[in-house]
Amino acid sequence: MTTGFAILGAGRIGRTHARAIAGSARARLVAIADPVEAAAQELAAQYGCDIREIDEIADSADVDAVAICTPTDTHADLIELFARKGKAVFCEKPIDLSVDRVRDCLKVVDETGATLMVGFNRRFDPDFRAVKAEVDSGRLGEVEMVTIISRDPGAPPADYIKRSGGIFRDMTIHDFDVARWLLGEEVETVMAQGSVLTDPAIADLGDYDSANIILRTASGKQAIITNSRRATYGYDQRVEVLGSRGMASAQNRHEVGIEIAGAGGFIRAPLLNFFMDRYTEAYAAEIDAFVAAVEDGTETPTTGHDGLMALILADAAVTSAKEGRAVRVSQTGD
Amino acid sequence: MTTGFAILGAGRIGRTHARAIAGSARARLVAIADPVEAAAQELAAQYGCDIREIDEIADSADVDAVAICTPTDTHADLIELFARKGKAVFCEKPIDLSVDRVRDCLKVVDETGATLMVGFNRRFDPDFRAVKAEVDSGRLGEVEMVTIISRDPGAPPADYIKRSGGIFRDMTIHDFDVARWLLGEEVETVMAQGSVLTDPAIADLGDYDSANIILRTASGKQAIITNSRRATYGYDQRVEVLGSRGMASAQNRHEVGIEIAGAGGFIRAPLLNFFMDRYTEAYAAEIDAFVAAVEDGTETPTTGHDGLMALILADAAVTSAKEGRAVRVSQTGD
Amino acid sequence: MTTGFAILGAGRIGRTHARAIAGSARARLVAIADPVEAAAQELAAQYGCDIREIDEIADSADVDAVAICTPTDTHADLIELFARKGKAVFCEKPIDLSVDRVRDCLKVVDETGATLMVGFNRRFDPDFRAVKAEVDSGRLGEVEMVTIISRDPGAPPADYIKRSGGIFRDMTIHDFDVARWLLGEEVETVMAQGSVLTDPAIADLGDYDSANIILRTASGKQAIITNSRRATYGYDQRVEVLGSRGMASAQNRHEVGIEIAGAGGFIRAPLLNFFMDRYTEAYAAEIDAFVAAVEDGTETPTTGHDGLMALILADAAVTSAKEGRAVRVSQTGD
Amino acid sequence: MTTGFAILGAGRIGRTHARAIAGSARARLVAIADPVEAAAQELAAQYGCDIREIDEIADSADVDAVAICTPTDTHADLIELFARKGKAVFCEKPIDLSVDRVRDCLKVVDETGATLMVGFNRRFDPDFRAVKAEVDSGRLGEVEMVTIISRDPGAPPADYIKRSGGIFRDMTIHDFDVARWLLGEEVETVMAQGSVLTDPAIADLGDYDSANIILRTASGKQAIITNSRRATYGYDQRVEVLGSRGMASAQNRHEVGIEIAGAGGFIRAPLLNFFMDRYTEAYAAEIDAFVAAVEDGTETPTTGHDGLMALILADAAVTSAKEGRAVRVSQTGD
Repeated sequence: MTTGFAILGAGRIGRTHARAIAGSARARLVAIADPVEAAAQELAAQYGCDIREIDEIADSADVDAVAICTPTDTHADLIELFARKGKAVFCEKPIDLSVDRVRDCLKVVDETGATLMVGFNRRFDPDFRAVKAEVDSGRLGEVEMVTIISRDPGAPPADYIKRSGGIFRDMTIHDFDVARWLLGEEVETVMAQGSVLTDPAIADLGDYDSANIILRTASGKQAIITNSRRATYGYDQRVEVLGSRGMASAQNRHEVGIEIAGAGGFIRAPLLNFFMDRYTEAYAAEIDAFVAAVEDGTETPTTGHDGLMALILADAAVTSAKEGRAVRVSQTGD
Repeated sequence: MTTGFAILGAGRIGRTHARAIAGSARARLVAIADPVEAAAQELAAQYGCDIREIDEIADSADVDAVAICTPTDTHADLIELFARKGKAVFCEKPIDLSVDRVRDCLKVVDETGATLMVGFNRRFDPDFRAVKAEVDSGRLGEVEMVTIISRDPGAPPADYIKRSGGIFRDMTIHDFDVARWLLGEEVETVMAQGSVLTDPAIADLGDYDSANIILRTASGKQAIITNSRRATYGYDQRVEVLGSRGMASAQNRHEVGIEIAGAGGFIRAPLLNFFMDRYTEAYAAEIDAFVAAVEDGTETPTTGHDGLMALILADAAVTSAKEGRAVRVSQTGD
Repeated sequence: MTTGFAILGAGRIGRTHARAIAGSARARLVAIADPVEAAAQELAAQYGCDIREIDEIADSADVDAVAICTPTDTHADLIELFARKGKAVFCEKPIDLSVDRVRDCLKVVDETGATLMVGFNRRFDPDFRAVKAEVDSGRLGEVEMVTIISRDPGAPPADYIKRSGGIFRDMTIHDFDVARWLLGEEVETVMAQGSVLTDPAIADLGDYDSANIILRTASGKQAIITNSRRATYGYDQRVEVLGSRGMASAQNRHEVGIEIAGAGGFIRAPLLNFFMDRYTEAYAAEIDAFVAAVEDGTETPTTGHDGLMALILADAAVTSAKEGRAVRVSQTGD
Repeated sequence: MTTGFAILGAGRIGRTHARAIAGSARARLVAIADPVEAAAQELAAQYGCDIREIDEIADSADVDAVAICTPTDTHADLIELFARKGKAVFCEKPIDLSVDRVRDCLKVVDETGATLMVGFNRRFDPDFRAVKAEVDSGRLGEVEMVTIISRDPGAPPADYIKRSGGIFRDMTIHDFDVARWLLGEEVETVMAQGSVLTDPAIADLGDYDSANIILRTASGKQAIITNSRRATYGYDQRVEVLGSRGMASAQNRHEVGIEIAGAGGFIRAPLLNFFMDRYTEAYAAEIDAFVAAVEDGTETPTTGHDGLMALILADAAVTSAKEGRAVRVSQTGD
């Protein structure tokens, strides 16, 4: 038995998931939906699957699971639709930019008993997972501090920023999720500071391009996140956990593993510059994990609740940066 | 002509400075003062200098400069005494734990026109200086973010903590100074979060052992400082500057430069474990810089004002951590 | 138009190439041959291709190219068979363990005008290629020294060693090829030294497990190769080129990119332990390069001549190690 | 009691040793001898010691030990002179360029029972010592291969090369000593290959600037040494020991410990460029070890025999490179 899959959205991330599904022994790609016909046709041709309308997919008996790779403002509606149709749902983050909408959506998921996994790809990166394994092994002792340095190579276009919900909901949301995952405790207080340093147009959109955030749990564990929309040297993705007995850190990944030495010093390559290159293995492992959960009927490693909690932290960061104060957050999502 | 020096306090740091002065071609060690006779005698014997009382030193014509290495609560009085006697003064940080007392003391220094240098040793570390040189060269473009990870190998004894003024005034004060130095702008807002994670006794003393601090300048540049009193792997001292054109970072220093590979992986030595070992070169360069300023009549690279500003940031961090809000600080020290 | 492929041999390396061919947009997997029926069936089922006998494949109009992944002693015969049938041939190294047999085989290839590529996978590794690109760019100036450190995680079974032709022909042959490629000149003199240090059984088989080899070209450029059959820390694959203007080196690849710090120091993961993991990308790029050469009618990046020259160097190393003298080799392969 | 020291030769290395002796609590600098009056006076003024003729020093009751820092062709005569006068002798390598002359000299040392230490500074480098400590601890298992990469930043002047005895006796001699020390067994066979690649003038002097050497002990352990007179990126000094259970390596030392990242990649500083900077700590530790041996009456860590053995290996390398054959050497120095 293999899981029949439909992919909603044949864009960049849809294509990535299509490749992962096609390469999985436990899944088969049944259908693709995309309003842009050419995009759908290209994927259908490459993987020999059908092109179907979304409603058709919802009623297809040969579709057991869907991967939602459409624009953010369609996510919650689609999750509800497919949950009600009894399909397992994989949805790219975020579920929605509104916490209330997310809560409503998760209620539907809950009522239908549907399987929902939210795509936080970093949890599936081999290096991040190895750090987490160290934490779980107890070799680091009690977790005390998580340090996340996360910088994009360059800011997205103004149009994207406008609809993104802002840096905390769009970019930091990944770091919030990683912080929760590594802290192993829910966050109680958020302090954030934002600036615009790379491009004044970002200020005009009411957003920041540079931010630092301190998270604190009830027991006093802390996480620090430092973000920038621009790093000339590539996509900077570092994470470090300080525990009572030791420290574990994940290094950055360079474009290529060589070093050139000369009178000017020793030069290593810039970092992988694009998130799809940096997290290639993570995207594949993420879909594998979803397929495994669907096939085995086990809990998905990332849930709708994880999506909600990360968004709550993002909202708190927005408030903290604006009002210059520590913001307390619900530790249960209610 | 060489500068005649007296050292006040024959403890650990006094001995370090004695060695630097004795090794300098432009300075000579004339006298040492310490209430503990044995300590004074040991230094006097090693360097062939006199043992004198502090008042005697203040009136010694052959003493041009003093290095104050006595307990913190004597610093301000001694600075005033020697400033009034026309001696050049090198004083270990901090000038005092009270901002008001520091302000009064600096007024005296100002009125007397005395030379005063406050010992912020990290500015003289070859690696930190190399990072600063990159900043000053313009090769990094505009400074945007400074990231400082600063962890001690272990907490000092309770007795020390009690009189230390707390982690922000005792430990972070170095990082505040480094942040100001690398940001190249005064800080406008301080946000801080503190926890006790390594030893409940520290909470009983009203202090923290783990802290994160976000600094922000008027133009939006930010610095993030992450501190812990305990790092099992040694004395962790990292600093990184993100600029609009690039990034510069200073690496940690290991006990020895070898790597051992086996079935368990590749092992490098722990970090140098003691601040005097980590900053050996910095302590020597610091005294050299003071001697050069005295001999050449130039401004000292670190001043009383630097001492005041770092203390103001520490006070703001105390308030921010306690009250859960961003604290605005005077950018002129007034 | 895509190239129709047959794979001869459904073992480990055959399966690797099958995956690469199936994933290529310019090739399609038509048939598989293997005397072990189960192995052939597994591959046929996975990729939906035929199972055919070798003779049948030789006469199949829908097969344009073959990948020879059978035991070494069949390589030369198969190359000749398929060259005569007008098929393009990709053959795993070595063509044969006898230089004379290789020469005869290449004569047939030459007469038939067939396309032949010999599988030296390391030339297709992204890191090794980046080093080569530095050499070709001229940024290193004139190449002076190539240093290759190449160690296997563990010795192969006695049975394998017996039929391997010995360490120089089996293991070092890759390093000989890399050395020729990076030196950019043919080797004139070979000096080699062999020992048995890991297992006396290897001595009983007349082989070595530890060896060092110095190569020298007519113009005086040198390469040094250091080999061991056992490295407890994984598969050690380093290469370094010293030029008149600088140096380029390829680093080892670790199992995972994290570091754990504690009282015992800083620990990185062992190296990738298996050649198929270490050279995953190389194997895929190698087949891509073959497909491109076949489709575009261009020269293959590695040729039968490369296979011959590497074997000649291996033979010279055998003689040098045995007789304790520098051995001069033909620089044309004649 | 402290050891009274005289230094013969007030050049670069003489000044280095003077500083170490002056800084030692167990030694005092009594006298300096140098035909260049200004050089002698400068040292005498700095350390407050006498200037004496060599013969006068030989008869000075307050001189217990001498450090010979004069030109190579005076070493053997001076060793004999001072050994006969009952002084402990520290002599810079080499004792002489002629193996026969060294043997005669060591006979005198032997007859007089004098203490003689030959200056192989690398054995006292903290990193090299840490590698040796790993070997001695047994944690690496049995030593199998030693790999030494040793490159100078630039060739010395022609005049120096002319009197140097050639690259193997002048430069590789250090590596021969390190190889013997780390192998823990005497070498039985030497294979060497030399080239001239950096400057044809070196060929005119009958020397090489680029060389590779393979050493082999009776039990089959091997060492490989790769040398060049020119490395544009600084003074390259790497050593690595492969054992049956693991590997230990000493890394290079950079001018400063920072990294600069930008669009062109990640840049670390070049290596320390000068042997006196690279081995500062080693030179101090070397003299300390000599003083300790003299004071405590223990054996010196490097002996005249070590000097002889390294020279014998150098002679064998000269022969091997010239005649293209493995050269067997005496394992006892006889």
